[in-house]
Amino acid sequence: MAETAGTRLDQQIAFLNEADKLKTIIRGTTLCDASRYENSAEHSWHLTLYAMVLADQAGPDVDMVTVIKMLILHDLVEIDAGDNPIFGDHDISDMHSAEQVAADRIFGLLPGDLRDQFRAIWEEFEAAETPSAQFAKSLDRFQPPMQNLQSGGGSWTEYNVSEAQVAERVGSKIAIGAPGLWDYARQRIAAYFAAHKS
Amino acid sequence: MAETAGTRLDQQIAFLNEADKLKTIIRGTTLCDASRYENSAEHSWHLTLYAMVLADQAGPDVDMVTVIKMLILHDLVEIDAGDNPIFGDHDISDMHSAEQVAADRIFGLLPGDLRDQFRAIWEEFEAAETPSAQFAKSLDRFQPPMQNLQSGGGSWTEYNVSEAQVAERVGSKIAIGAPGLWDYARQRIAAYFAAHKS
Repeated sequence: MAETAGTRLDQQIAFLNEADKLKTIIRGTTLCDASRYENSAEHSWHLTLYAMVLADQAGPDVDMVTVIKMLILHDLVEIDAGDNPIFGDHDISDMHSAEQVAADRIFGLLPGDLRDQFRAIWEEFEAAETPSAQFAKSLDRFQPPMQNLQSGGGSWTEYNVSEAQVAERVGSKIAIGAPGLWDYARQRIAAYFAAHKS
Repeated sequence: MAETAGTRLDQQIAFLNEADKLKTIIRGTTLCDASRYENSAEHSWHLTLYAMVLADQAGPDVDMVTVIKMLILHDLVEIDAGDNPIFGDHDISDMHSAEQVAADRIFGLLPGDLRDQFRAIWEEFEAAETPSAQFAKSLDRFQPPMQNLQSGGGSWTEYNVSEAQVAERVGSKIAIGAPGLWDYARQRIAAYFAAHKS
């Protein structure tokens, strides 16, 4: 059956209505004021703003438009697969399988051209091999410690993690795409842990 | 005093931490499932996704990168000036004055180059004179009725508005930048009001 204008718009709106559910996916990080946990939709917005503000931290081969599109789309699979907190205990292989099934269903709501375009952007982000994906991933890892430093510990306290664990799980990823941001974060994380020695 | 790399990044992060407050600004529209009111940060994310999905509804002179940047930034002034629901009762001139003061303070947290760049994008959106700003404004007006249709009335019920008021306050704005979307919404809004005649 030929695609009519009506059915194309119906598919586009059905996808946008489904995407609304990302506002109900709760993350392990709180707002800066610690008043509540952050959801993945507002987190995604905040990251797009990080990209606009911190573009000068990106390497010369990073395409900022691609980065922003990646950050808009990157968490949509969580609608089906849920959020996996950085310091949580989960099977990486199970998580990737669940996210692939989620991507099939959620991007599959779109007309074919948009489905393929969005899926390719998301797959590039997930693979973390291009400079744009590596910078986007670095911002995704850089924002939670910035929130934790403001909220007084956040997920570090909740998951009882050490400075070494933050460096291993977060720092190593930030350093790949945005070494200047890891340098900035590392000093502040060290000061936080020095002040909160038990 | 010359700006050092350290102080520049400090300013960038201070702005990003301040922007976190947009997650606490509550709008007049609920989520599609009517479970709670939407906040302006997750709304801003949803609109960037609307732009990516509905780019084929934009006229030939619309620059989609500018549209996405506008939608990321457009509500930041609400951190100080608050959200003004479409069907609420407020003095437009007072609102514009408060938003200008808010823009001075909030964008003023940034290094000068970013402050000027972001302010210009926001002013272009507010003026609604360029094709990009008109399309961005249309998306900002198109999303709430799409949410209300899903949630069973939302702000239409709360503010007790008529179909004619929706057409006047919302439809006229959508039609300027995205006539195809107003055509789509108008039919569905008419069906909703026909089914909910008191």
